[in-house]
Amino acid sequence: MERSEFLTAARAICGPAAVLSEPADMARFLTDWRGMFHGAALAVLRPASTAEVSGLMRLCHDQGIAVVPQGGNTGLAAGATPDESGHQVVLSLERMTAVREVDPRAMLVIAEAGVVLQHLREVVDDAGRLLPIAIASEGSATVGGVVSTNAGGSNVLRYGMTRDLVLGLEVVLPDGAILDGLRRLRKDNAGLDWKHLFIGTEGALGVVTAAVLRLVPRPSTRAVAFLRVAGLSAATDLLDMANTRLGETLTAFEVMAPFALKLVGTHFPVRPPGDPESWAVLIEVASSLPGVSDAFMEFVEAALAEGLVSDGTLAASEAQSNELWSIRERITEAEARAGASLKHDISLPVDAMARSLREIETALLALDPRLRVNLFGHLGDGNLHLNVLLAPESPRADITTLIHDRVARAGGSISAEHGLGQYRLADYVRLAPDAETDIARRVKRALDPDGGLNPGKALPM
Amino acid sequence: MERSEFLTAARAICGPAAVLSEPADMARFLTDWRGMFHGAALAVLRPASTAEVSGLMRLCHDQGIAVVPQGGNTGLAAGATPDESGHQVVLSLERMTAVREVDPRAMLVIAEAGVVLQHLREVVDDAGRLLPIAIASEGSATVGGVVSTNAGGSNVLRYGMTRDLVLGLEVVLPDGAILDGLRRLRKDNAGLDWKHLFIGTEGALGVVTAAVLRLVPRPSTRAVAFLRVAGLSAATDLLDMANTRLGETLTAFEVMAPFALKLVGTHFPVRPPGDPESWAVLIEVASSLPGVSDAFMEFVEAALAEGLVSDGTLAASEAQSNELWSIRERITEAEARAGASLKHDISLPVDAMARSLREIETALLALDPRLRVNLFGHLGDGNLHLNVLLAPESPRADITTLIHDRVARAGGSISAEHGLGQYRLADYVRLAPDAETDIARRVKRALDPDGGLNPGKALPM
Repeated sequence: MERSEFLTAARAICGPAAVLSEPADMARFLTDWRGMFHGAALAVLRPASTAEVSGLMRLCHDQGIAVVPQGGNTGLAAGATPDESGHQVVLSLERMTAVREVDPRAMLVIAEAGVVLQHLREVVDDAGRLLPIAIASEGSATVGGVVSTNAGGSNVLRYGMTRDLVLGLEVVLPDGAILDGLRRLRKDNAGLDWKHLFIGTEGALGVVTAAVLRLVPRPSTRAVAFLRVAGLSAATDLLDMANTRLGETLTAFEVMAPFALKLVGTHFPVRPPGDPESWAVLIEVASSLPGVSDAFMEFVEAALAEGLVSDGTLAASEAQSNELWSIRERITEAEARAGASLKHDISLPVDAMARSLREIETALLALDPRLRVNLFGHLGDGNLHLNVLLAPESPRADITTLIHDRVARAGGSISAEHGLGQYRLADYVRLAPDAETDIARRVKRALDPDGGLNPGKALPM
Repeated sequence: MERSEFLTAARAICGPAAVLSEPADMARFLTDWRGMFHGAALAVLRPASTAEVSGLMRLCHDQGIAVVPQGGNTGLAAGATPDESGHQVVLSLERMTAVREVDPRAMLVIAEAGVVLQHLREVVDDAGRLLPIAIASEGSATVGGVVSTNAGGSNVLRYGMTRDLVLGLEVVLPDGAILDGLRRLRKDNAGLDWKHLFIGTEGALGVVTAAVLRLVPRPSTRAVAFLRVAGLSAATDLLDMANTRLGETLTAFEVMAPFALKLVGTHFPVRPPGDPESWAVLIEVASSLPGVSDAFMEFVEAALAEGLVSDGTLAASEAQSNELWSIRERITEAEARAGASLKHDISLPVDAMARSLREIETALLALDPRLRVNLFGHLGDGNLHLNVLLAPESPRADITTLIHDRVARAGGSISAEHGLGQYRLADYVRLAPDAETDIARRVKRALDPDGGLNPGKALPM
């Protein structure tokens, strides 16, 4: 089939306006969020319904055309960017924007793949419940993308990853078959729980077209503190104390190295409170019980009395809570203003963390003494962003290899929350045990025998 | 290979005492917990290490001998009972009893498959954390069985199923290969999260030999109430109110029909408090904040004031809390004393529940007016145990078919928490969409191409 024939056939399925083939129209779908990867495409297809997705998938399958599914295109591992061949098709779900149902009594919401996360969170909030997925890209990220990448964020400590919130999925398989699993059940324990095949595999096994997401009670009270600690070990001790004393109310436990805070102070009109040479943690608690505020204050006082915390700021209002959060949230932007950097999304076993990171930093400086390490992240779940500010001609590949090798050796993950995409797949295959990558290959072959779905992303062939 | 040669080869791998071949020695492994299924076996193998499991699996694989993995043999769907051919081997994990590590700071425990759940819970409790899996069979159920069946229980409402607590697994594949995934990470988002292939699939894809389980903070305060309500709809309204007002502290929300409570009163020296013609709910809250007791009392008072609850008992002590729980826990035993029954482990969408159950009861009585329905369960997560007390020569198969058909039609599950095993596999295949069973078949063939691992359980071939 010639390109023109393919475009005609696609238009017959989803209408002419939904098939983009001009370079200018396709451009925004062909580069990843960070601008690291630039692809080409035969066409960008924008179906508006599950039936259209099914028809397009069957067409591509029959024609042997590889399909790259795409949501809000905010991924940080280029899992939704096509290769440079121009033979692949981008399947954008952005027109599937129906919130099919919000049911606060059943504590669930049913949304199509293209619904923007922030919008969905607001709809749920209006219904008196909470959709506890808190990621920086929520203004563009979509339900399909969040599910397909198993998005994390700053509330994982309390509510888990996106995977833990998915009750049911509707998926279109590579040959166009529709798996209708939009279950509204909290408990369904019938053999293989197949939805986990499609969560976190970045559209390499099937295209998520809609999801049932579990909601949680909306806390009535929250409290936030910004505390200075001596270092990462002290932060880990403080986390242990918070788990014991604050229990289920602990919602976020973020850590920031002094350098990360100085970056924010340099590039924004913000002065993070406390001694600028100290590490800091940002702790949030939230509860349906108003007593959480007093319990939190007692916790902070006890931590000060025990010398775990050197000084701290307890937010006195919602506005001040947001201000303290904005310090943490500005680190990424401040880093971007400081120049070129390499980002790593690692997790480490909590008790090995301080030592492993010291060793990594020492090794990095041996590689290139001009490097500066920007360290911050979700200590509460062992996930740190270990970003390296580069000097001109710093050895990029060596830096990432060094970090990934040492993280793997320490029992950590080189992809704590961002996913493998095309950015980390090769390193994953290099470092994971063969028995593990073999399982991934077998599942890929079982569900996508022709390898036409998002090749080169998430799963090895 | 003759049977005697096989036994010799197995003894060479795991020692002579670990290979049982006499009928008397094998008997306890060949009948399921409920005594519904009676199998035979070539041998019962009891390896004491992962290496021995691997060696035995390779031996069976090479000889084409089917393997039935078994934990504490407390499953309610006969997933661990061999068939009657005498050609299968039972692989009991009961000798793998090491708790490899308890780490309260990292909030995790690493235990081998044969560790008894109650023992593990106590070990974790001593370390100041909570392993939140609460099932009636904890005195015999093992870690391997709990993971392989994705056990539920009465705390799922708050903490999720076992699946939600598994951080890592060690698994032996059909050909003896060892998958070492004993990760200590809360966040590890690298492509296919393969551990979900082995959770809930009852050993039909691989044998779980050890698991890393996530722990949670141990609440310092709990409160329990036994409340009478007008019926299932009122109970559902009360659940909604509890979610809104008690939020994250809600730990259990159990419902019991009047008949279930009368059974307990008849067969035990216990008088459930309140009007015996009313339904009852048992609610438990628990928190790290002591204020939960007052909030709970206010909630009960508000429910009484709004007329949602007709009368109630709030436990004044731990002993009274346990007494109230024992009413709920005695239903199963009271039912057994009342005569023969058929058990169904269903879940239904919360809002369809009251109507669906009325229709099912009406249809059952049309089938056989002597039947009595014993209804109780975990309303908080939509999971009810719909058991039917039989009269002589009641049409057993028709009763189960009727219930399963109607539950499936209402969007429910015929296996909410007990699993498919061999008891429900045929009904699952009959009622599930073909696209879904096709996925299960493809995964089974990909991981167990010879079909030698627990055939006829959990997954269709």
